[in-house]
Amino acid sequence: MMRDKCGVFGAVGLSDAARLTYFGLYSLQHRGQESAGIITSDEGKIELHRGMGLVSRVFKDPAILERLSGSIAIGHTRYSTTGASSITNIQPFLITNRQRKLAIAHNGNLTNSRTLRTELEDKGSIFQTTSDTEIVLHLVARSKEEKPLSAICEALKTVTGAYSILFMTEDSVIAARDPQGFRPLCLGKFNGGYVVASETCAFDLVGAEYIRDIEPGEVVKITKDGLESVFPHQKQKHAYCIFEYIYFARPDSKIFEENVDKIRRRLGRQLAIEHPVEADIVIGIPDSANTATLGYSEESGIKFEIGLIRNHYVGRTFIDPDQKIRDLDVRVKFNTVKGVLEGKRVIVVDDSIVRGTTSKKLIKLIREAGATEVHFRASSPPIISPCFYGIDMPTKKELIASSKSVEETCKYLGADTLGYLSVDGMLGMDSLPAESYCVGCFTGKYPVPVEPRNGKLFLE
Amino acid sequence: MMRDKCGVFGAVGLSDAARLTYFGLYSLQHRGQESAGIITSDEGKIELHRGMGLVSRVFKDPAILERLSGSIAIGHTRYSTTGASSITNIQPFLITNRQRKLAIAHNGNLTNSRTLRTELEDKGSIFQTTSDTEIVLHLVARSKEEKPLSAICEALKTVTGAYSILFMTEDSVIAARDPQGFRPLCLGKFNGGYVVASETCAFDLVGAEYIRDIEPGEVVKITKDGLESVFPHQKQKHAYCIFEYIYFARPDSKIFEENVDKIRRRLGRQLAIEHPVEADIVIGIPDSANTATLGYSEESGIKFEIGLIRNHYVGRTFIDPDQKIRDLDVRVKFNTVKGVLEGKRVIVVDDSIVRGTTSKKLIKLIREAGATEVHFRASSPPIISPCFYGIDMPTKKELIASSKSVEETCKYLGADTLGYLSVDGMLGMDSLPAESYCVGCFTGKYPVPVEPRNGKLFLE
Amino acid sequence: MMRDKCGVFGAVGLSDAARLTYFGLYSLQHRGQESAGIITSDEGKIELHRGMGLVSRVFKDPAILERLSGSIAIGHTRYSTTGASSITNIQPFLITNRQRKLAIAHNGNLTNSRTLRTELEDKGSIFQTTSDTEIVLHLVARSKEEKPLSAICEALKTVTGAYSILFMTEDSVIAARDPQGFRPLCLGKFNGGYVVASETCAFDLVGAEYIRDIEPGEVVKITKDGLESVFPHQKQKHAYCIFEYIYFARPDSKIFEENVDKIRRRLGRQLAIEHPVEADIVIGIPDSANTATLGYSEESGIKFEIGLIRNHYVGRTFIDPDQKIRDLDVRVKFNTVKGVLEGKRVIVVDDSIVRGTTSKKLIKLIREAGATEVHFRASSPPIISPCFYGIDMPTKKELIASSKSVEETCKYLGADTLGYLSVDGMLGMDSLPAESYCVGCFTGKYPVPVEPRNGKLFLE
Amino acid sequence: MMRDKCGVFGAVGLSDAARLTYFGLYSLQHRGQESAGIITSDEGKIELHRGMGLVSRVFKDPAILERLSGSIAIGHTRYSTTGASSITNIQPFLITNRQRKLAIAHNGNLTNSRTLRTELEDKGSIFQTTSDTEIVLHLVARSKEEKPLSAICEALKTVTGAYSILFMTEDSVIAARDPQGFRPLCLGKFNGGYVVASETCAFDLVGAEYIRDIEPGEVVKITKDGLESVFPHQKQKHAYCIFEYIYFARPDSKIFEENVDKIRRRLGRQLAIEHPVEADIVIGIPDSANTATLGYSEESGIKFEIGLIRNHYVGRTFIDPDQKIRDLDVRVKFNTVKGVLEGKRVIVVDDSIVRGTTSKKLIKLIREAGATEVHFRASSPPIISPCFYGIDMPTKKELIASSKSVEETCKYLGADTLGYLSVDGMLGMDSLPAESYCVGCFTGKYPVPVEPRNGKLFLE
Repeated sequence: MMRDKCGVFGAVGLSDAARLTYFGLYSLQHRGQESAGIITSDEGKIELHRGMGLVSRVFKDPAILERLSGSIAIGHTRYSTTGASSITNIQPFLITNRQRKLAIAHNGNLTNSRTLRTELEDKGSIFQTTSDTEIVLHLVARSKEEKPLSAICEALKTVTGAYSILFMTEDSVIAARDPQGFRPLCLGKFNGGYVVASETCAFDLVGAEYIRDIEPGEVVKITKDGLESVFPHQKQKHAYCIFEYIYFARPDSKIFEENVDKIRRRLGRQLAIEHPVEADIVIGIPDSANTATLGYSEESGIKFEIGLIRNHYVGRTFIDPDQKIRDLDVRVKFNTVKGVLEGKRVIVVDDSIVRGTTSKKLIKLIREAGATEVHFRASSPPIISPCFYGIDMPTKKELIASSKSVEETCKYLGADTLGYLSVDGMLGMDSLPAESYCVGCFTGKYPVPVEPRNGKLFLE
Repeated sequence: MMRDKCGVFGAVGLSDAARLTYFGLYSLQHRGQESAGIITSDEGKIELHRGMGLVSRVFKDPAILERLSGSIAIGHTRYSTTGASSITNIQPFLITNRQRKLAIAHNGNLTNSRTLRTELEDKGSIFQTTSDTEIVLHLVARSKEEKPLSAICEALKTVTGAYSILFMTEDSVIAARDPQGFRPLCLGKFNGGYVVASETCAFDLVGAEYIRDIEPGEVVKITKDGLESVFPHQKQKHAYCIFEYIYFARPDSKIFEENVDKIRRRLGRQLAIEHPVEADIVIGIPDSANTATLGYSEESGIKFEIGLIRNHYVGRTFIDPDQKIRDLDVRVKFNTVKGVLEGKRVIVVDDSIVRGTTSKKLIKLIREAGATEVHFRASSPPIISPCFYGIDMPTKKELIASSKSVEETCKYLGADTLGYLSVDGMLGMDSLPAESYCVGCFTGKYPVPVEPRNGKLFLE
Repeated sequence: MMRDKCGVFGAVGLSDAARLTYFGLYSLQHRGQESAGIITSDEGKIELHRGMGLVSRVFKDPAILERLSGSIAIGHTRYSTTGASSITNIQPFLITNRQRKLAIAHNGNLTNSRTLRTELEDKGSIFQTTSDTEIVLHLVARSKEEKPLSAICEALKTVTGAYSILFMTEDSVIAARDPQGFRPLCLGKFNGGYVVASETCAFDLVGAEYIRDIEPGEVVKITKDGLESVFPHQKQKHAYCIFEYIYFARPDSKIFEENVDKIRRRLGRQLAIEHPVEADIVIGIPDSANTATLGYSEESGIKFEIGLIRNHYVGRTFIDPDQKIRDLDVRVKFNTVKGVLEGKRVIVVDDSIVRGTTSKKLIKLIREAGATEVHFRASSPPIISPCFYGIDMPTKKELIASSKSVEETCKYLGADTLGYLSVDGMLGMDSLPAESYCVGCFTGKYPVPVEPRNGKLFLE
Repeated sequence: MMRDKCGVFGAVGLSDAARLTYFGLYSLQHRGQESAGIITSDEGKIELHRGMGLVSRVFKDPAILERLSGSIAIGHTRYSTTGASSITNIQPFLITNRQRKLAIAHNGNLTNSRTLRTELEDKGSIFQTTSDTEIVLHLVARSKEEKPLSAICEALKTVTGAYSILFMTEDSVIAARDPQGFRPLCLGKFNGGYVVASETCAFDLVGAEYIRDIEPGEVVKITKDGLESVFPHQKQKHAYCIFEYIYFARPDSKIFEENVDKIRRRLGRQLAIEHPVEADIVIGIPDSANTATLGYSEESGIKFEIGLIRNHYVGRTFIDPDQKIRDLDVRVKFNTVKGVLEGKRVIVVDDSIVRGTTSKKLIKLIREAGATEVHFRASSPPIISPCFYGIDMPTKKELIASSKSVEETCKYLGADTLGYLSVDGMLGMDSLPAESYCVGCFTGKYPVPVEPRNGKLFLE
């Protein structure tokens, strides 16, 4: 089963809804680059276009957006770990059930999908994709509730895990977020209509105004006439994904009601407090660690520098599913600025250390450029366990911190010193109470139970 | 709902099953040119490739057939009347149900698909295509039978209409034909394994030996170890599609246990008996009417000539779904041989007259080439009603014989005389009893009831 | 150096000249299927589109023909023996010289291209293609003549060999044919404008009227205002390619002022006179041998039958440059009609025997279908030497008749008897004097000397 | 005539030369994104691959690099202002002249191309592209010199303007740089072979070691055995393009023997000296102004901040040839970080102001994000005149500084204050004497005369 780490965008009551969605997805491109799709309803006339690749490529032909007419649209940009059968997995999905069309775009990862799928198959449901998103559609279709909103609520009561979902019916978008609120989902206003998006940076691009988050556990039906909000689930403790703040979301976004940039800077400041070191300059791994590096510099008083140049004609390291490119050479993505590094004691800040392979190679490059000392700092704690709620991570075995101590890791990386932010330091930073976050990947303690799998699947 | 007029091919117990299937589909290309697909099982490892266009184009990249490893395969080549949503409709379809993979390739047209689909949707089934083939999958998935063969038999008991279906499980191909036997389906042997195909011309290409037809109402499980045959339906009167003989099948095929070429020639001979006329030469519309024209020439003693040249870089008129190309100009497909036609009284034989528009234009071309008389002959009776069992035809209104008498049609076409083969003449030709055939399109009397539809759908 | 065996079409003084050219090329598709291109002049605004593949594919996007505006156009469809560098070789070629645009589309093969190319390179000309057509452009550009017609005439005086060329300037098409007239080139009228084409079948498709051939040695400037004809060369003996009649041209065309169909039928009749044999039926290799087979049947009184079915979803055997497909299996292209062949003594007529490999396989297939005797007949003499004037043939070594006697060939083919048409019989058939034809491939005596090449090139 | 602003890379004496060139071009991608190509020589066997788009796309299929075998290669990545005929303009170009192959990859812009082209056309040369690079090939081909190096030297003596050219013969790469040295060209060593590249960042990626620049006016023949250097031109005053330092080159490159990063930082420092202002933070337009912004921050003591986020899934503003995307919305490329800007007095540093349209929109965005004051600073002087030596710029009329004073521009941009770096300040920064640079675009005084053109062409 794939992990759907993705971006979603919806527009209601807005002429040219597809074009807005196109630009919305464009600014959510960092959340998934494998495929993209948009579906529209023009007074019930449904049009769908999906394809592999970046949003700009999938919608390259202007005739496509022309065809996607109507004032209601949802879109999806997707990242996944699987390859072969991926075309059938491109979202949004569209089904017909009882003469009604229903489309879905999903960000997240269900934790009881195997159980649900088996149950559904036992009742005769057939599956045409390998995505857990299809399960939700089956559950909605099997509901006896007449109204789509009610059927969706009934369906969502049986699923567990992380989801920020946009459904599209012929005359509405229905936005739903799981009771823990793992993934962000924001609501905005624009030109008398509504928009919903994974992150607020999508609102900025189209010029929409942020109203509020879709709340954890909320299901909102959005039509051109307004909002209808229900809370079908029992109230549960929140579990916002802290990794969205650390790495995944864009720094110019506001998610979980806080500016990402602000949090990231605090993480950098706290890192400087926890792991000070004497050095000449502090540099970050561009671009994701830029803000935390500024925080480190501010707190420590050590000069901020640009010591690494990123070649932006490749995708983001973490997000590229093609193992070969990542391993081929870190130099394809980064080059050192010799004049900056030569003869310097350098602190290098990164947002996180996953496998450690990229960090190791970067440290080597930085030394080759003449740095006399390299002090590596991560603005998050050691990642010791995978994410089951929608962030794509390697298996536990591949996570360097799952098997190596800080000292061992430092030695492996070839750094002079290594410092990770502490879990407490990370959580103490923020306006929200520490228990509002999911920090499963740092602690191995997961807020929502995950169904048992056999070894093979666990490692997939 | 589309009409799936298609070709199917399957191979079991044969290394390189995909390559055999590729060549099999290649020789069934005349049965559908819109899309093609092959699915294989390599000891349970399933690989699927599908695409729009001719078989040779869909499987252009040699790496594709390499990837489709295994000794079991089924393939499909498809023609349809719809355009927009066609990509999701490309067969074979593949589903997972209770951890088991099931694929399907279907030639035919169900007559109770609306009813079944509504029932299934009411029970919570979701539909991701507009093809009636998907209904069969849902029915199989909902069966309580454990064994695939039993589940398939149970499912097929509830569907009516025309179908020659190949299912593929991880270790078998299951071939099924409806109790009336509307569409052909043939079984062959090759290198110790088995092949199944819509027509025997596919056996000839790969060098396989024809054994027998899959019988009407028979469901056969084919594994590398042999055949397991069941007859789940009550015995019913056969209804072989006579149009397969007249036009659709290739003349070098044997279907319904008879050589197509032989039948076609008899139709031409009988046409000469029923509609003799004094003339200098007899020509056929290439290529489909060639054999009937030879029959007419033999019986009448009038000299056979090649008076029309076909440009083979376009598809077959009848089969091309793009209305614009067909209407643009018949001259794109045919040119006259002036030296042959000039100053001659010409008999023109075609296999059938559908709308009459092409015939009218051809007659005009033939006159322009200098023919002094043009006598048009159809080696089939007037088509007065559409086919509901899988042959794509225009609506009743568009069928010229549904509203015009023979005299009116002759005048419309601009022919000097016009003669259609009689229904009795057509049926009297053959070794099988007349009542074994479906002649619904010529008589309006259909052997299997068709569910009521609203006017719009009936005319689609 | 490649041999440009191709089709050309031009239109002058005709609105929508590109569309006419498109359809013209379409009907000349049998002359070359590797690439196609059209260039237009809209009051001096030049637009060019070229691509690999069939005409219908290269001009698939309707926007392309829209862009190719103007009342003057030339087009080219090309077959070649080379692969790798083929994209740069797609015609028409376009150059700028002294602020003037000149385009060219060429059918034929120059015999002094190596010499000319070396001379030009010595003078500083640079070559960007491997086509001999580029030489003609250089020669025109180096002419001191001011007027394009004069410059072209001067250039053509230095080249020898076979060419039917269309040039396009900003306001004219200039059509030129070599003094021997190896390749056909026809002039037609349409809607007050002019068309030129390799064969008249292109006129029939667009509805144009044939006026006359561009004469051997003639260079005609065609503008919207009329024709300006010059004969720059010394008069020379004609050398019409007899192979155009035998195989290459379409039977519905008129070339060299004679109907192809009529000549082909005479070849078949003469073949029956020269090589009679007792048999039950006579069949032809479809489609090229159909007409000759009818001639054989008429003369011999032996019944004409259709014993082989051609799968038209592949290209013509002779014309496909991909050795692998041709050798893979003749069954991809042909299937036998068993009911026709079973128990029969069969005469098989083909237009020619080149390598003999296809014939050998076909004879095997025909025997497998039950023929008791197979008598093979070729409606042309043994091909003993390659063509240097634009027909693509294998090397001398690969030509079966270059090394094997008729008896040896018969044995190799596995036929009961084998008969070739005699050279005298072939030439005696026709209204033109025998010496008007090039029969170099049958006699090894070439009407125009070919420059010496080293062994390697000769065998290319 | 296009301006070829491009990146070039060559490799000699290195197995897998194409792969090295691929990675070299990859790191030069910022110099041109419209097309890319690589040509190789494997002991005289030449292979060429070219295509439209990014390097990674053009060479996506691994089979391509496999095919490009050999130890000698040159490559080109290109940006151009034209669209329509662009496919024929993709470099490297390859010609044959006197049985010898010669390939070329060119970065720069000739200033006497019109004159040369007319002369060449008068002598009978034909042009198949619209690129001035083709002129050089003609000149080489027309040289009477036997040896390629001599012929190239002779040819280059007649051209004026900017060029850094790589030629490839069957056994060498010949690198040439114009006497003024407008564009960079660097020589490196790797694994016993040689590499040449537009910028040293290409050496870093492949792991090569920088040796020295190809000197202005130098022509170097590079073979596996070593270097042969000649200086065919009279010595002339250098005219290094200062804009390479300001904007065009990558900050991690060393060009004109100086680190780009170091120069850019000095420009920022000097800017702070010349145009101080009281403010809370200083931000740069990412990524090109990052380094200058750091310099400004250091010098002024005002806090460096990241106030704008760039969406890297689009190309660089300056370099994108599609006017529509640039004008559509600057928000597609940039978003503001509200938490950083809100309530702040902001200094915004950009590398240059061209049209001013992007700056104006960015200032508006920054104000919308809550900045109370916006002080705009350019780390280069006002651009008042276009570049004729290979940097693509709009026409003089479109350059905002050509018609507006600083005050008018400030008002147009909507900034509180505006400061440009002075020409003297810019030149005073550097180790090289001020007169070594071309500053034509800032002063209108051009070091090499440009041939007169008609008004239309001047404005193209």
